[in-house]
Amino acid sequence: MADTSTNGRVRIPRDKADDYTRDQAGARRAFVREHTGTELSHVGQYSVDPATLAGNVENFLGVAQVPIGLAGPLRINGEHASGDFYIPLATTEGTLVASYNRGMRLLSESGGVRTTVVEEHMQRAPVFVLSDALEAREFGAWVDEHCDDIRSAAEATTRSGKLSYIGQYSIGPLRYLRLNYTTGDAAGQNMTGKATLAACEWIQANHPSHPRYILSGNIDTDKKHSRINMLLTRGNRVVAEATLDKGLLKRLMGVDTETLFWARQIQMAGSFLVGSANNGAHAANGLTAMFIATGQDVANVSEAHAAISYTQLLPNGDYYWSITLPALIVASYGGGTGLATQRECLEMLGCYGSGNVHKFAEICAAVVLAGETSLSSAVLAGDWVSSHDQLGRNRP
Amino acid sequence: MADTSTNGRVRIPRDKADDYTRDQAGARRAFVREHTGTELSHVGQYSVDPATLAGNVENFLGVAQVPIGLAGPLRINGEHASGDFYIPLATTEGTLVASYNRGMRLLSESGGVRTTVVEEHMQRAPVFVLSDALEAREFGAWVDEHCDDIRSAAEATTRSGKLSYIGQYSIGPLRYLRLNYTTGDAAGQNMTGKATLAACEWIQANHPSHPRYILSGNIDTDKKHSRINMLLTRGNRVVAEATLDKGLLKRLMGVDTETLFWARQIQMAGSFLVGSANNGAHAANGLTAMFIATGQDVANVSEAHAAISYTQLLPNGDYYWSITLPALIVASYGGGTGLATQRECLEMLGCYGSGNVHKFAEICAAVVLAGETSLSSAVLAGDWVSSHDQLGRNRP
Amino acid sequence: MADTSTNGRVRIPRDKADDYTRDQAGARRAFVREHTGTELSHVGQYSVDPATLAGNVENFLGVAQVPIGLAGPLRINGEHASGDFYIPLATTEGTLVASYNRGMRLLSESGGVRTTVVEEHMQRAPVFVLSDALEAREFGAWVDEHCDDIRSAAEATTRSGKLSYIGQYSIGPLRYLRLNYTTGDAAGQNMTGKATLAACEWIQANHPSHPRYILSGNIDTDKKHSRINMLLTRGNRVVAEATLDKGLLKRLMGVDTETLFWARQIQMAGSFLVGSANNGAHAANGLTAMFIATGQDVANVSEAHAAISYTQLLPNGDYYWSITLPALIVASYGGGTGLATQRECLEMLGCYGSGNVHKFAEICAAVVLAGETSLSSAVLAGDWVSSHDQLGRNRP
Amino acid sequence: MADTSTNGRVRIPRDKADDYTRDQAGARRAFVREHTGTELSHVGQYSVDPATLAGNVENFLGVAQVPIGLAGPLRINGEHASGDFYIPLATTEGTLVASYNRGMRLLSESGGVRTTVVEEHMQRAPVFVLSDALEAREFGAWVDEHCDDIRSAAEATTRSGKLSYIGQYSIGPLRYLRLNYTTGDAAGQNMTGKATLAACEWIQANHPSHPRYILSGNIDTDKKHSRINMLLTRGNRVVAEATLDKGLLKRLMGVDTETLFWARQIQMAGSFLVGSANNGAHAANGLTAMFIATGQDVANVSEAHAAISYTQLLPNGDYYWSITLPALIVASYGGGTGLATQRECLEMLGCYGSGNVHKFAEICAAVVLAGETSLSSAVLAGDWVSSHDQLGRNRP
Repeated sequence: MADTSTNGRVRIPRDKADDYTRDQAGARRAFVREHTGTELSHVGQYSVDPATLAGNVENFLGVAQVPIGLAGPLRINGEHASGDFYIPLATTEGTLVASYNRGMRLLSESGGVRTTVVEEHMQRAPVFVLSDALEAREFGAWVDEHCDDIRSAAEATTRSGKLSYIGQYSIGPLRYLRLNYTTGDAAGQNMTGKATLAACEWIQANHPSHPRYILSGNIDTDKKHSRINMLLTRGNRVVAEATLDKGLLKRLMGVDTETLFWARQIQMAGSFLVGSANNGAHAANGLTAMFIATGQDVANVSEAHAAISYTQLLPNGDYYWSITLPALIVASYGGGTGLATQRECLEMLGCYGSGNVHKFAEICAAVVLAGETSLSSAVLAGDWVSSHDQLGRNRP
Repeated sequence: MADTSTNGRVRIPRDKADDYTRDQAGARRAFVREHTGTELSHVGQYSVDPATLAGNVENFLGVAQVPIGLAGPLRINGEHASGDFYIPLATTEGTLVASYNRGMRLLSESGGVRTTVVEEHMQRAPVFVLSDALEAREFGAWVDEHCDDIRSAAEATTRSGKLSYIGQYSIGPLRYLRLNYTTGDAAGQNMTGKATLAACEWIQANHPSHPRYILSGNIDTDKKHSRINMLLTRGNRVVAEATLDKGLLKRLMGVDTETLFWARQIQMAGSFLVGSANNGAHAANGLTAMFIATGQDVANVSEAHAAISYTQLLPNGDYYWSITLPALIVASYGGGTGLATQRECLEMLGCYGSGNVHKFAEICAAVVLAGETSLSSAVLAGDWVSSHDQLGRNRP
Repeated sequence: MADTSTNGRVRIPRDKADDYTRDQAGARRAFVREHTGTELSHVGQYSVDPATLAGNVENFLGVAQVPIGLAGPLRINGEHASGDFYIPLATTEGTLVASYNRGMRLLSESGGVRTTVVEEHMQRAPVFVLSDALEAREFGAWVDEHCDDIRSAAEATTRSGKLSYIGQYSIGPLRYLRLNYTTGDAAGQNMTGKATLAACEWIQANHPSHPRYILSGNIDTDKKHSRINMLLTRGNRVVAEATLDKGLLKRLMGVDTETLFWARQIQMAGSFLVGSANNGAHAANGLTAMFIATGQDVANVSEAHAAISYTQLLPNGDYYWSITLPALIVASYGGGTGLATQRECLEMLGCYGSGNVHKFAEICAAVVLAGETSLSSAVLAGDWVSSHDQLGRNRP
Repeated sequence: MADTSTNGRVRIPRDKADDYTRDQAGARRAFVREHTGTELSHVGQYSVDPATLAGNVENFLGVAQVPIGLAGPLRINGEHASGDFYIPLATTEGTLVASYNRGMRLLSESGGVRTTVVEEHMQRAPVFVLSDALEAREFGAWVDEHCDDIRSAAEATTRSGKLSYIGQYSIGPLRYLRLNYTTGDAAGQNMTGKATLAACEWIQANHPSHPRYILSGNIDTDKKHSRINMLLTRGNRVVAEATLDKGLLKRLMGVDTETLFWARQIQMAGSFLVGSANNGAHAANGLTAMFIATGQDVANVSEAHAAISYTQLLPNGDYYWSITLPALIVASYGGGTGLATQRECLEMLGCYGSGNVHKFAEICAAVVLAGETSLSSAVLAGDWVSSHDQLGRNRP
């Protein structure tokens, strides 16, 4: 079972030959009990086969059981997702499922959500260090000229990754390259990392000055919200949009579309003032719950939660509502998508496996829009109730 | 049991009298099978008692089993966390546990991580709508004058929430108030929401013009990264810092501290250029894995992943490394922290229950720093290997 | 006259005893002619007395003649500015004066602009370097406790500067202090620099660890747009607001208020997407022209041009329009305000000298609003003309 | 002569036939005297011929006399600017000229400044409004396919403007196009506006759905700092860089390069924290003074002051310093460059007229770098003096 110390450092039990077994997981739980006094009884109860976890986790000792609530149906009229969907939401936050469910009903009864994957780019962004800005500029021109060779080097490392274009950004003697790929059904961070390493090695070997590089100059911007993500997309740029009937909104949500639009002006001004990553309500909630349920890399919520809401009050009083997610990083294959419970959740959406990533992206965006309508209305319905008597709307 | 359509809308089975049972969960899985054809076999296997899930999820049908890997020990010399810790990381991303583990070894062998909770603020930010900017300014002065009354109204709704101060921000006729609270061992979003509603109602009732308000003007900025979070803190502002021995870093990580610092300049420039929420490497990875394992509101990763790295190369060649997390929203009590597996994971850290939230926050920050050292070094060691021969550091 | 080289370096003529004379200016123009071949004929023609320029410029050789156009009247109903104003705009950009003039007519005929100085803060932001984050936090508490002493030290250096509050911001072992002052009729950068130096010296001498500091940690953020400026104000936070009659707007500007509001949604979404400092049209144009004319520190346009537009379409079809300038740094006294032409331009606004800075700030904001209405309408009137036939506004 | 009221509105005197005369200027000054009581004596003294001001200003009544100080020589080793330059700085801020002059000496004695124009893009950014996101995406593809036709339409309106590429950015049903041009020796805002109008009209006429558009969707982002400017350049992206001798810096500036670099880490962290447009010191100061002197559109300082400083401490103790200006919008021809004093100032730099815009851009960047070195050193030299005894640099 081999725990413990080399050089005085206690070591977590690990079997180099066969570490993904129930016994090894048990040994690690025993180790935890020994060192912390905590019995991991529930953590040790799982149905996933440890042998399937190689490549997903190291030092496996059990599972977190995250409760899943069911919401839906949600009617989606997308390019890839079409029909009524039931959504698994893994969360420990009370009311989340109920609130999204309410929004799904509104959207479905309004005729459903239109969804569109507008574009798709996954990146790795190395930086090359030249001797000065002039050489850096000329290096950039050289990269443009050798784009086909660079693409060949990159794509030789992957079956599904395709290099779309190389963005270039200059600071002093530095030339940041941002290699943009399509990555099939995978989120693609690893795939693009490997391909970009090959691209960089080719560049370094072939450029006359054999410039030094760092594989990431931190403008990728992996696992970090950024303005470049919002502008230039990371993962999928997906739009969900719906036109909400004025009467239906009033009946289901208790608010007028005029009030929603009035409040929208105030919330947009606030979002702009404080430098928010999202001028809407709470995209992170729905995305996180879907990501946990379906085996996405949940840390991507840091990037995926960015959003731009754009709405218009139509002359007939109906409400056009769109949300654009510029950095929705998702997969229908690879990563955690194939694990026991995660795969089932993708399957119930008809999204497991090859060819389904855009369908899944569209469903994510539709779910987000449902949550926006529900929370935004709830905030105002409360206000309405408490302040209905002084509502003189001729005052700004 | 399985009711269905009203007005043609299919309805998810729900028992208003007693919905948190294995039977009801099973009924919903059957409903999913009927409507999607998917058998939720693994999702239906769990040890958590459904009766404990009221307040955490609606329409419960089973669980996501998220594998947990073990990392550590991590030596922490904090105010609240002190000693060697073993860290549960729930993730499906291969190498994550191994990489953090490597960083923990480096930090521990360097003498450990110092951790400090610098300040603590949880907010709800309503907006009051006045007739013009002048009235809004005077309203703001009135709020300042009546701060004690407003505090009384807010604090009457909660045992553990305390109103620290009210920030005020003006746009046109709008006065955004940002009520800052300490919230004990809870993350506090709900607590502050309820308290702030009471505060707003008091204000509206007592201010001579009985101004209209919206409970959130979107500058809270709940579940959204923002610049105001970075400046003014949301949740805990926590710092982890360590001084890394030059020789040790070279031996364990394969990089020189000079190279790390050289690269740091480049990565900071890149982060600044692209408007990143974090000028470090990948705080979101470690935080997400800890959040899932310990029952945090994982959607808070959208805010919590923001970070500022600050480092110095010391005259003796050692490397001072700090990371500041300005929006680490965590709880040791309430929310999902008391669920079956989640509680066990908090217990193994000695962080379950009352009085432990700052200890947990410190551990989170220390884990993040471990991940920073590991990934940053890995990026450069690769570079070093491939390019060791042309490393003329007299070139910028 | 023209001394020259020491150590081979050619030196610009300079008379240490009496350098602010027409002769010395002429000597320098001769020096320019000698070294560049350029005859500075027009530059040498000025009415300002060189003797008045000490403290405003070094190595004076003549003037830039910047043409001033006249706009107005602009009716302002402010706290400090009240009545009809004629505005001097120094610019070389054709149509600027005409466009602002058009906006002034619209605003005046709509009843005038309400203006309000909401708050006023000028800053200098030193950073203290402590040994770690814990010491930095405790240092921060010490600063709070000794605020009165620090204020005394700071205010001893100035007659008109008053220390309002000290904001504190932590990164690792660093404690950035942002000392906020009111500065009377001066913009106050120099005054606050001197006062803050005294404050820092007092802190360093009296704090037990005598911590090292840098007088600016770059969060002031002098001569640089920043998010902290938008949130926490730099100089004056000023609002200009007006309610525009629907019929008048259509008659004078050729656009419907509905169209303006529809377009506003699109422009706000765009501004948010690209991370703009200003979600309005072109505040910088009017401010720059006024700043040059009136002897402001024109480099402050970098900060002053930030703005938040907030509008509402009222139920009766009229249009409420506000613009909030969070960083309007201006002076009515000191700096360049007393120079020959600059003083005349301030005088024609009734803003020269003591007690007039808020009046001037209000006029600036009103001028900005005039420019917003004019340009925003022009953009749309063009569109309207070219596309009037396909304008189906039921489409988003 | 002063005509006046129509509909009760007092009107500024204006002669439609011949308004650009000394008499008309005098009439307007008389009008000002009549309405404000202010005698514009100095404003009325100028040598510029009013007849040359058509196209630069309306309602001309005189000039602002802005004092010019002389700095230099500044040695520049650029692609376009090469040699020793004397710089005219129009300012009313004391010490500005002296401080820049000091930096110029340092840079010149260090061997001079390398300058590089990295890229050049001027934009106008219309937005097209489609019926939904899917149609917007397809519209985008159509634009790509018809890029040559669009270019032809745009370029037919201008001799010197060339359309480089069309960036596309999606929000909901909106397709923002950002047309990037090179504009010869002009700043190009008007040129690109006219060309883009033609492009839009062509698109609207030829696209099957004849979509509505707005000529600016506010992502240009004219006269406003923005993140998109920093990333994708507006005007010229120019780098100035120098390697500063350790001993020389100590002798001239009184600081060690190690101290400069230590402080740089702190200032970069601060700049990142507060969301600054510029992580350096005060680019706006030098740029504004040059812009006023040389007839640039000074309002562009709002955009031009953005900068990214990137530095490295070299192993031998010398200091590599670069500054990158991503949005330096300048002209050597057109606008105010041909006016009396402005042209002389451009001529003394050898930058007046066709073919000189990149030379002028390089000089601007070099001047900025001079100011950075001077102010950054001054801040620290002060600190050094006051705190020289406790400077234990082994503490972070």
